[in-house]
Formats: sequence, C-alpha cells, structure tokens
Amino acid sequence: MSDINSIYAHLLSPSFKQDIRNWLKEDVPSFDYGGFVVGETQEIAILYGKSAGVVAGVPFFDEVFNQLECRVEWDLKEGEYFEPIKEVARVYGKSCNILLGERTALNLLARCSGIATRSRKCIKLKEECDFQGVVAGTRKTTPGFRIVEKYGMLVGGADTHRMDLSSMIMLKDNHIWSQGSITKAVERAKKIGGFSLKIEVECLNEQEADEAIGAGADIIMLDNMKGDKLKLTAKTLKQRWAGKRTFLIESSGGISEENIVEYFSPGKLLIVFVE
Amino acid sequence: MSDINSIYAHLLSPSFKQDIRNWLKEDVPSFDYGGFVVGETQEIAILYGKSAGVVAGVPFFDEVFNQLECRVEWDLKEGEYFEPIKEVARVYGKSCNILLGERTALNLLARCSGIATRSRKCIKLKEECDFQGVVAGTRKTTPGFRIVEKYGMLVGGADTHRMDLSSMIMLKDNHIWSQGSITKAVERAKKIGGFSLKIEVECLNEQEADEAIGAGADIIMLDNMKGDKLKLTAKTLKQRWAGKRTFLIESSGGISEENIVEYFSPGKLLIVFVE
Amino acid sequence: MSDINSIYAHLLSPSFKQDIRNWLKEDVPSFDYGGFVVGETQEIAILYGKSAGVVAGVPFFDEVFNQLECRVEWDLKEGEYFEPIKEVARVYGKSCNILLGERTALNLLARCSGIATRSRKCIKLKEECDFQGVVAGTRKTTPGFRIVEKYGMLVGGADTHRMDLSSMIMLKDNHIWSQGSITKAVERAKKIGGFSLKIEVECLNEQEADEAIGAGADIIMLDNMKGDKLKLTAKTLKQRWAGKRTFLIESSGGISEENIVEYFSPGKLLIVFVE
Amino acid sequence: MSDINSIYAHLLSPSFKQDIRNWLKEDVPSFDYGGFVVGETQEIAILYGKSAGVVAGVPFFDEVFNQLECRVEWDLKEGEYFEPIKEVARVYGKSCNILLGERTALNLLARCSGIATRSRKCIKLKEECDFQGVVAGTRKTTPGFRIVEKYGMLVGGADTHRMDLSSMIMLKDNHIWSQGSITKAVERAKKIGGFSLKIEVECLNEQEADEAIGAGADIIMLDNMKGDKLKLTAKTLKQRWAGKRTFLIESSGGISEENIVEYFSPGKLLIVFVE
Amino acid sequence: MSDINSIYAHLLSPSFKQDIRNWLKEDVPSFDYGGFVVGETQEIAILYGKSAGVVAGVPFFDEVFNQLECRVEWDLKEGEYFEPIKEVARVYGKSCNILLGERTALNLLARCSGIATRSRKCIKLKEECDFQGVVAGTRKTTPGFRIVEKYGMLVGGADTHRMDLSSMIMLKDNHIWSQGSITKAVERAKKIGGFSLKIEVECLNEQEADEAIGAGADIIMLDNMKGDKLKLTAKTLKQRWAGKRTFLIESSGGISEENIVEYFSPGKLLIVFVE
Amino acid sequence: MSDINSIYAHLLSPSFKQDIRNWLKEDVPSFDYGGFVVGETQEIAILYGKSAGVVAGVPFFDEVFNQLECRVEWDLKEGEYFEPIKEVARVYGKSCNILLGERTALNLLARCSGIATRSRKCIKLKEECDFQGVVAGTRKTTPGFRIVEKYGMLVGGADTHRMDLSSMIMLKDNHIWSQGSITKAVERAKKIGGFSLKIEVECLNEQEADEAIGAGADIIMLDNMKGDKLKLTAKTLKQRWAGKRTFLIESSGGISEENIVEYFSPGKLLIVFVE
Repeated sequence: MSDINSIYAHLLSPSFKQDIRNWLKEDVPSFDYGGFVVGETQEIAILYGKSAGVVAGVPFFDEVFNQLECRVEWDLKEGEYFEPIKEVARVYGKSCNILLGERTALNLLARCSGIATRSRKCIKLKEECDFQGVVAGTRKTTPGFRIVEKYGMLVGGADTHRMDLSSMIMLKDNHIWSQGSITKAVERAKKIGGFSLKIEVECLNEQEADEAIGAGADIIMLDNMKGDKLKLTAKTLKQRWAGKRTFLIESSGGISEENIVEYFSPGKLLIVFVE
Repeated sequence: MSDINSIYAHLLSPSFKQDIRNWLKEDVPSFDYGGFVVGETQEIAILYGKSAGVVAGVPFFDEVFNQLECRVEWDLKEGEYFEPIKEVARVYGKSCNILLGERTALNLLARCSGIATRSRKCIKLKEECDFQGVVAGTRKTTPGFRIVEKYGMLVGGADTHRMDLSSMIMLKDNHIWSQGSITKAVERAKKIGGFSLKIEVECLNEQEADEAIGAGADIIMLDNMKGDKLKLTAKTLKQRWAGKRTFLIESSGGISEENIVEYFSPGKLLIVFVE
Repeated sequence: MSDINSIYAHLLSPSFKQDIRNWLKEDVPSFDYGGFVVGETQEIAILYGKSAGVVAGVPFFDEVFNQLECRVEWDLKEGEYFEPIKEVARVYGKSCNILLGERTALNLLARCSGIATRSRKCIKLKEECDFQGVVAGTRKTTPGFRIVEKYGMLVGGADTHRMDLSSMIMLKDNHIWSQGSITKAVERAKKIGGFSLKIEVECLNEQEADEAIGAGADIIMLDNMKGDKLKLTAKTLKQRWAGKRTFLIESSGGISEENIVEYFSPGKLLIVFVE
Repeated sequence: MSDINSIYAHLLSPSFKQDIRNWLKEDVPSFDYGGFVVGETQEIAILYGKSAGVVAGVPFFDEVFNQLECRVEWDLKEGEYFEPIKEVARVYGKSCNILLGERTALNLLARCSGIATRSRKCIKLKEECDFQGVVAGTRKTTPGFRIVEKYGMLVGGADTHRMDLSSMIMLKDNHIWSQGSITKAVERAKKIGGFSLKIEVECLNEQEADEAIGAGADIIMLDNMKGDKLKLTAKTLKQRWAGKRTFLIESSGGISEENIVEYFSPGKLLIVFVE
Repeated sequence: MSDINSIYAHLLSPSFKQDIRNWLKEDVPSFDYGGFVVGETQEIAILYGKSAGVVAGVPFFDEVFNQLECRVEWDLKEGEYFEPIKEVARVYGKSCNILLGERTALNLLARCSGIATRSRKCIKLKEECDFQGVVAGTRKTTPGFRIVEKYGMLVGGADTHRMDLSSMIMLKDNHIWSQGSITKAVERAKKIGGFSLKIEVECLNEQEADEAIGAGADIIMLDNMKGDKLKLTAKTLKQRWAGKRTFLIESSGGISEENIVEYFSPGKLLIVFVE
Repeated sequence: MSDINSIYAHLLSPSFKQDIRNWLKEDVPSFDYGGFVVGETQEIAILYGKSAGVVAGVPFFDEVFNQLECRVEWDLKEGEYFEPIKEVARVYGKSCNILLGERTALNLLARCSGIATRSRKCIKLKEECDFQGVVAGTRKTTPGFRIVEKYGMLVGGADTHRMDLSSMIMLKDNHIWSQGSITKAVERAKKIGGFSLKIEVECLNEQEADEAIGAGADIIMLDNMKGDKLKLTAKTLKQRWAGKRTFLIESSGGISEENIVEYFSPGKLLIVFVE
C-alpha cells in the first residue's frame, strides 16, 4: 500500500472520536492549571519530524485538535516519507488549547508513525527482494490502542492480519485436541464461522498441514519450522495441492525488520513481523 | 523501589477493571468462534518468561482472567527479576476462557514488564554510580494506557514524574510570554494551583533559573543544557540558594538506559528517561 | 448447527454483560416502585413456552438474573425444539428482583428464540430438499442488538454472513464505479483488506461475474437474477472456473421461510433470508 | 396523534445521539474497508419506500448521517403515509460516509416505520369503529431500542402506555400477595410512588376490581376476561363508581391489528396491542 | 413513610452500581498512593453519627465498600433516627481499601442523610399539624446525583414529586401560549403523554385553574398565591368541582422546614419544599 | 483569585461536556413530553440573580445550552459579584430546547455560584483581617460533581486543596501505624509518590509535628488543636525549622464562614472550610 494518494482516513468510522475524548480526559482528570496560566492568545505550533520516517496518524492528530477548536495544516500526506529536520504540520488555535492537546496528539502520532515506518521498511525489503508473499503484523498490540497501531501498519503498507478473535478463526493445538483431529476441528470451525470467515490452522509438520488443507483450511501456520525445512515443506505442499486447493503458508515468531529477509523464499510465504 | 515486599496492587482503585472490560471487548467485538470450537474442558496454561527481566502488571493480568472465571498462580512476585526460561505463572480455567483472555493478558504483561525492566536498569545504574538524584519517566505514554505504563515504571523503581496536566504545573516559554515574566507566571500558577501542587519552570539559562527559584518554583528544568555546563549551572544555583529555597533541577530529552550514566553528577539532578 | 450439544455461550465474551446492565437500566431509569411494594420474599417464577419453537438466548437470560442475584434452572438446552405448553425454565430469587428483570429477560429470549426458530425452519427445509448450499442471515438487524440476533441465527443453524463492515469486504456498484472497473476495485480491496478477509462482489450479469472471479472475488452476488436464469448462470460460472477458482454465488433480497425453497438449486448457491 | 404537523423530534433529548454513536460502532468495530475502496466522491443516495406505510424515525435517520457529515432531504414529513414506490428522501455526502451509515440508518427507519405503520392501522380501525377508548403499546420492546420503538408508536398515533418500571406502578398477584390484600398493596404503592404516578392493578374478577378502584387504582387490568364478560364487567364497574372514582379498564394479551376490532366496546376500554 | 421496616434498597436497580464505580474513579483518577503506604492489614473503621438525624443511603454506602471487598455492619436501619454521638456502622476490610472508599462513602451518606433528615422534619410537622396534604421535594437536585437525593427524600418520608421531564407533564406559561389556551395545551399533552402520565398546570388565578381542571389537569399549581388567598382559592375550587373531577393543588417556591407550617391548610394542599 | 479578568473556563478540558450529556439524560430518560407541547418557536429566557452572590459556572451553563443549540448572552463575567434583582443572562433558542435544559442548567449554576459565594466571603474576611495564610476547601464534595464544586471554589478565590487521592499524599494515623513511625511512613510515601507530589501528615502534638517536618512533610495538619494552643505550636514549629525546612500548618474541621475569623493568626496557617 505504498500509494500515498489513498486516503486512509476513510477506513475510520466516527466512533474513534470517542477514544480521543477519553484520551484527552486521561491527561486532564480534573483541571488544566497550565491552560489557565497561559490564556487564550492565538498561536501557531509547529510540528517537526526529528528522525526520518513515515508520517501516520493524521486523522487522530486532527481530531485531538478539532475537539479543542484548533486547526491543523499538514505539509505531508498520510504515509509520506520524510527526512529530518522537516516541518510536518502547523497547529493554529488558542494557546491553552494547543498545550492541552499537545502531549496526547504527539503520543498518538509518534506511535502510529513509528509502526508505519517499521511496516514500510519491511515492505521496502520485500520489494527489493521481489518477494511475492504477504508481510503482515501481529495481534500483539497495546490494549485499547489497536485501531491506531493497525492503522499505522496499513499506512506503512503491511497487511493487518486478523484484527481480533471475531475476524478469522485460528486453530491451535488446544482446539484440535478438544475435537480429536484437525479435520474435525476445521469442520466445526466452518460450521460456526460460516462461509465468510477464513480459517487458519497451526501445524507441527507436513502431515498435519496436509490434513488441514484437505479439510479446507485457508492458511497453514508452520510456526516451528525455519529456513530450508520451511521452504521445502512449503514447496511440497504447494505442488501437491496445485489446482485443488488455494491456501497460504504462514511463518511467524521473532521476525522483525532485522531478520525478515531470511524468511523470504520463492514459494508464496506469509511473513509476520512483531510490532 | 526495589523492595519487592511492597504490594503495588494497592496503588490501584477498582476502576481499572472497567479498562480490562473494554480491552477484552476490543479483541472480541462480536463472537469468539475459536472459543466455540475449543469448548470448556479444564486446562492449565503456563506462562514462561522468555527473556530476562522484571515481571510487572500482575493485577492487570489477574483481572483479565478473573473476568473470565480463571485463576492465576504466580511463581514470582510483582517486581521480581527472572532469568529465562522461567515458569512465571499458571492459569487455570476453561480452555475457551483461557484462550479468550490470552492475547490481552500477554499484551498487558509484556508492555508493563518491558517498562519495569527498563526502569529497573536505570535504577541499577543509579545505585552503581551512587547517584543521589531522581530518575523519572516522561508523560510520553500510550494514550489510554498510561495507568499500566506508569505502574510499570513504579514497579521498576523509577519515579513517575507528574501523571497528567492536573498533577503539577509545568511552565514553558508560552506560559511565561503570556504573563510577561517568569515571576508573574509563577505567581499566577501559585494562585490557581494553590499550595498542594508543585510548580516546574523550563529555563533557558542561569538567569532565568534564578528568577524562577526566587519566585518559588519547586523544579527547574534546564532542557537545553548538557554535560559540564549543566553540572556547573546546577552547582552554582544550589550554592546560591542554599538555606533559602528548596528546589530540584531537571534534565530531560533523549535520555535512555544507554546514555543515562552521562547525566549523573554530584549535584542533586533529576534525570528523565524516555519510555 | 443442529447439534444441541454445542455450547453456544462459548461464542460470547464477557463484554455482553455490559449490554445487559444498560438494558436493565433502560427499564428502570430511576426507581423500581413495584419492587418496593413486593419486597424480598423468595419466589420461583416459571417460564412457559407458549408456542412451538427453538429456545435461544440462554446466556443473555441467565445474565439478566445473575445481575439480580437470581438463579435460573433450565429444562431445555439452548437450541432445543419444544412443543407448547412446555415448562422451559424456573427462576429462583427475591420477588422484587425477579419482577425487575422479568420484562428485559423475556424480551431478550423472545426475540432470540424467534430468530432461532425461523433460522431452524430454513435449515430444516434445506435438509429436506438436500440443498448443499449455505443459508445465511442478513445485516438487517436491530441497532445495538445484533449480537443477540446473530446469536439466535447461529443457534437456529443458519450462517451469520458477515457480522459488520469490518468482517468482509462487499463491493457494490459505487465501489466499482469509483475505481473504474471490477478488477481494479477487487485489487484495491485486497490491498487494504489483506489476506484474512474475503471479498464479495455484486454483479449484474455473467460478464461482470467472470471479471470478479478472475480478479479473485470469493463470493459473487447476483442480486437481480432469479429462477432459471440464476441457476443457469451459476452452473455456467461453476463449470467455466472449475479447478481454477473457488467461489460462492449468493442470491438475496426478499427471501424468507415462505419462499426459500424456490431458491434452492443443484449448484452451490448461497441463500440469504431476511430476519 | 394523526396530526402530521406535530414535530415528534421535540420529544427527544440530545442523549439519543450517543445511542447513534454506539450503533455506528456496532457496524464498524475496527475498519471500514469498503469506505477506503469507494473514496470520497460526492454522491446522492435515494431512499425509496418499497411498501405502503407511515414514515417514522426521521430524527434518528438524520442523526446517523449528521454524524457522518452528510445531509438528508425529505419529501415526506414524519408520520406521513405513502404508497409505493415512493421517493422518500435523498442523502447527500461523500460516498464512503453514505455507505458507512446506510445499513444502520435503514435498519432504524425500517423498524420505526414498521411500528408506526401498525400503530396507525390500529388507530384507523379505532376511528372507523368510533371507539372512544385508548389504544396503546406494550413494554415488549427490543432491549436498548425502546426509545425508537415507542417513538414509532407515538408517530403512528397509539399511546405508549408506561415507558418503564419507573413511570407507573403496576401491581400484579405477587405484589398483592406480599401485602395481604389489594387495598394494602395500593396503599403501599401510593405511599412510595406518591401523587405523581398512576397505579394499575391486575384483577381476576369484578370483586377484585371493586376493591382496587375503592383503594384508588387509576387503571384496572382485566387480563383473563374476554368478549361479552369483559364488556359486561366494564359496564357494571363504570356504573357503580360513576361520580366517585375515575378509572380506566385495560385489556391486553394477544391483541394485534388482526383482532383488535373484537376488543372495541362502548365502555371506555383500554386496548393494548403487541408490537 | 415513617415505617422503618420497609426496605428502601428494593427501589434500586443494579445500575446504580455503575455510578458508584464512576464516583470511586473520580477520587482516584490514577494512583492511590496512600493505599500503597498503608498496606492491607485487616482493619475495622467505625462510623459515628455526629449530629442527630435520620440515616439514609445504606445501599450506596454498602456498594462503595462492596466494590472494595469490605463488609459493613449496621447498628441502625435505613431511615432510623439517631441522637449523637451514636455508633452507626462498622466497616471491615483491608486498610488500603477502607481508606480508598472512605471519602466517597461518607460524602454519599452525609448528603443522603441530610436530605432524609430535612424530609423527616417536614413530615413530622405535617403529622403534628394533622395536615392531610402531600409534602414533596423539587427537581432542584444536583446533576448526576438525583437518584441519591430523591432516595433520601423517600427515606425521610416526603413524596419525590416527578422524577424528571419524562415522568409527568408540567405545563407552564410557555406551553400554554404556544397552544393558544390552557385547554388546548392540556389536550395536546394528553394526546402525547397518554393515559399513564399525570398533567400539572401552572395557573395564575382561579379562572385559569378552572379551565385547567375542566380540561383534565391532575394537579393545579398556584405558584404566585400565598396565605389566605391561596387557602380560599383552594377551597372554592375543591367545592366547585366536588364529585366531578379529582385534582390536587400545589404550592411551591421558597418553602423550607422553617416556614412550611404556614402553608398547611385544611384543604388538600400539596406543599413542595426546596432541598 | 478575586481577579475577574481571568478566564476560569481555561481550567476545563472538553471532557466535562460528556458530564453535561449525562446530566441532560438524567432529566429526560425517555421522552420530553413538555417539549412536544411547547414546540419550537424562538424564545428568549432571562436569568435573574435573586439573591446577592458571585456568579460561577458559566462554561457549564453555556455547554448545557450549546448541546441544545441555544445561545447564552451574559451581563456578568464569571466570578463577578451582583446584587439582587439582577438580570444575569439571556438564553436564545427554540422554546422546547430552552425548557429541556432549564432545570439542569439552573441546578448547575445555583450550586456552583453558591460555593463561589461562600468561598468569596471567606477570602474577603481573610483580606479584611490581613491574614497571610491559605484558605482552602475540602474533599467533601458531591460524588460525580467535584469538578463543578471545586471550580466554584476557585472562582470564589479559595484554594482547592488536593483534588483527589492521586493529587497529594495525606498520611493519617493508619498510615503511620502500618509503617511503625511517622518517619518511615513519610519515607515510603516519598518513594512511591516521588518528587512531584507533596506530602501532608496529620499530627497529634508538637513532637509528632517535629518528626514529620524532619522527615520532609510539606504540610502538617494539627486537627485536634484549637485557639491559642494551635497558634503557639505553629509559632514554635516555624521558629525551630526556620531556614531548614519549608512547610505549612493546616487546621481543619468545622470551619465555616461563620467562625473562620477565629482561626486566623499571625503565623502562616492554612485554614480549611467545609463546603
């Protein structure tokens, strides 16, 4: 998603505004004494990008200041890359309001941009290596803040993977044991999840993967395989099921921008990096 | 705060339980299909500490599973240091409930412990260098998650610094300009904040610091000074006001566990590190 | 999902309990005067099923009374069919509490069971006709009450279809026009939705359906086709793409238990009924 | 309330806007992927009335789109009757916003108008039969959605009956048994409910009704009487208490637009229909 | 309502517990530092009644400590009168929890008991003067706290008067002017409010009162009449409408326990005192 | 804080608007029937100040009417003193909206102004007596309403004292006993509360006060001393620690505008009055 013409704000429903309200309240549980001191002279605050990266989180930043009756002017678009020291935006408003929102807005933007920057780096590496697979994030997000972090991932270009436990069914050893076999667990998952949810199965070896694919799994996670073994297994499975089933193979655990290149391989592999 | 006999959970009011409710909802906006598949056989999940660190966030982790009718047994106390691979805790309950809470509970514990570990490292360095000042965190926390992050800081042993805009009055250049002088800004802050709040003033040089101390500021932030200049200024101020005023000098910006030692100095300096 | 041994309550996270709290408040905005009059003698209230149907909504009903410190004993399992007049459950508790929760609990159970009953009827018809396709619900649910209504659908045996706008991507004419072609719209949807979400495309004719399938759509909705034309088109598409693509064909609009049989056909058709 | 010049929106306090926020969130728990695909071209969506009925729910529909920065133009007034196929309203706004709010807004309007239409039918029958009594709804509403459903009832012309347990005191057998007699139960209800709440008593026979009226009940519910017996009892009671007490007689249970006419009678009877 | 055997807690639905949660959060927006210092030794806190009065607010006080896992033992029943210095209750629990809830619980109990005490005084005066009318409170309650204040009024023995704008219809000059006449305003109110709500009309003189009574008003407020004129008007109206209409006459504005006796009169007058 | 040019509204973050929403909902749990009757003619409502006092609560009053699309024009500034009968403000808007907000807005303004008026009286007395100490409020505020009441205190000119348990650490006998000595309790409080929070210690006698001051307490509360003994102790302590420690001495309990003058004394005493 390196197309910076896309408007990521269209992903958001207005309900995120309630989060912003709560986050402002966290920083001012009772009174804003500093705001009283500084008063309401009109002011312009300038936002500088101090280290190179991708800007992300514009609608959250905007809404903080919108609730405080300030206006933000951006020099960069959401998802644009910048070199330091870059003037990124200007906030216009009463000085008490700018200072009230400053910390919350910066905390939001810094976290969102940080994730977008790491996400972009992985995507850049993927493109340089001409890797045809998917690079996605994990669900290891900060509680209550997933919407911002996943948004940053999307702005950077990575795939969000499933958003939550309601979005895709992931079957691990517990699910399988409780049903007696992979096949039975997948059947039960399909029955309850229906046609609209994909199913992922965590498999220990090629044999389990075969059973899962046969049962209709959409994604096969081979978590405990690495390197050549993983690549070979992925290739074998792809060949065996060609024309019969469509599936993805996922690898995850301990993957970051430092080591992601080692995981790229000709077969269609899904790579998950830790946020 | 390296005393592990202290019970940090006593810092929390029951209102954090509502946060846990919201965070569980974030991970299951509609149905937990996997929970349906796995069913309700009794199970024990074991939590391993995979890298060395300080465990922190026990009451948050416990409450996640309490809301899911599971029970947690800990082998470590809040704030205790462990070497990998360490069995840290065991969760007992229905398998569907354990899996429902797993991701949220781990995300909480991982973030809280990570901050506690960094906090502890800085405190260890402080003790090794026999630094007599204060090491504190910043307000650069994740929106909506400050209670957990500041809690982790406390468990690690660092000072939380002010929690929010209602907790201490910080006067920066805007506040001062709006009032005409440091003295007038401090007076106005004292009038509105009263006797129960401390006042911190950001000063550019020794002259400003003198004015702030004279006006009654409790903390002087010398943000744009570093190294010997900072140490010299601090010493001079301490000597000049000895027996007349009590104040702390704060240095902040870009301080982390990698470089914090450079900031320690014989004078009573307050050091702030970025989370 | 006619297996009544499944425990549908495992689909629910504890956050539904907050909904119950709000619903109880709706029925007692200030005081419960009747509760004062009736007092707290222990009482048993008996719930009768007055018309034949499938019981559904047990965890919601239970939670209403749990919040009121009452206990419910059921004679039927979730999803079981009963003939009138059947004693379905007994509520034990203080009379003031039973009466306080009565209306809310009955309203919940009546709506949930009504949907489950209609859902079960359609599934029964599907089985009698040996229809191999999917029967699913719509998103035309009561605002704020979707969790209960979709739950009832699942208990009845129908598929929930997508839960919300975050769960599957549905492309209609607007989406396609804005991107210039079906192919471009599907590509864009895949880019943002990633590998974990399925994509459905609304097509006006066989040509559009071909384009959508080629672009990778998972579900093809043929909304304006009916009867033989629909069956023929479905058959042609299935044959043309056999071994190349996996997809479902969906038909919807004005389908209910009265006319659903007309929509069944040998090809794998997805049928959606209005709740 | 067949006067379509009345502005029913005046019945609503702004707090219903919070409900709309929650309902929009229900349909977009995380991202609106379709909104990203379709973008923000200005668009006009036309709302057609596909079956004859009374339009109701205008302020709810308007607020959905107001929160999405769209504007609605209506061709019909709240409460107006229309024949299909009628263009009822037009929504102007960004295509991503119109599509985001579409389902929630339509679900609201469909339910509200459906109830208003049934309500209006009963009122029409009442007028045609020149019935002088009251036709009212029940409290069997969808949890969390009562405000919309009762609003629809009012727009249709029926009486809402009591809104909730705080609005009127209804004494049933439990209340009476707990106090020993109807008289004592009514006295106790009057003591706690005060002068501003009306009291309704469910009576099994004429004797009980006499006691209730004597004790000061405002409404007598004769739930297990039907047809001639009901009419006769009502007449007898009215005559006996003429000039001494003012009261209404209520009949309810299983009354709908199909059979309501059978319940009309010369005496002042209150008729309750099931929603 | 001087019967202290009545259990006023039966008036409350469990939704008040959410208020308690919010009120505890108000007093601990982030950390309870004192709780950390004091630790968790088991302790008993004794609640003394320092000035004579009626104890009221037991269920609120109990719930504060219930949420903090403390237990309360009472020596007095809700609504009982006590002379100072009286041991009223004992709280058992961890010292950190008792201190956390102390201020909130006392603030609740003090306000509720204060209102109950004033309410009881007025009722005592009413009984001493053998006044047959109603003594009721106003809607001049603290925003967000009405449930507690009205509860205290009930415990004291006074009538709550209408709880809110949804509970009874009060027509003032604006309502009347907008409709052209009292008669039209009452008709319109009856149409929308239905049979279950009472209607009160504010009248300037006897003529207006006559019109309101004729139109079907249940309560006539004669706000600008005092003393003999009020008594005479009340008497005249009562006589004129005897056997035709049932209505109450209300007087309000500036009535307190100091001057309430002046407002008592043989006719059935409703007296409203300011909280 | 008798400077009426200060804009107290700058103390508030926008989160108080959510309180206003809830407070409006409290007064209209379902429908505003009166609003329907009165309709939407444009109207002007005039607010009169009926007894002398200080106006306070302008931003709360404004926001009530802002949410109802009305506009308020003020003749007085926040904190200004007025003599009755004074026209204070005018509200412009639809009559249904003015009447909907009227009671909530007046309740807010009356309470806030009442506290501001008492606060101002105490400050006036302080100035007349040329008392150099601090006059502050207590934490005995109405649950859920503290923000308004503390705001009123500030407008009147008094100090808020600590806002909540998170704002300053107060050590009482329990805290001290649990730690063994005042010195240990203060140390523990300093460790957890850090440098940014002040510490207050409740002392029974001069000896305890000495220990607390030596340990670093910022405020010494001498609750059970009165009159000359208090003045003497304060003087002794001030002299003994001159040039070594800075601290305040607090006296509280049963102080009101009636008796506050008795508590003034040459030493720097902090006086707390009950709200």
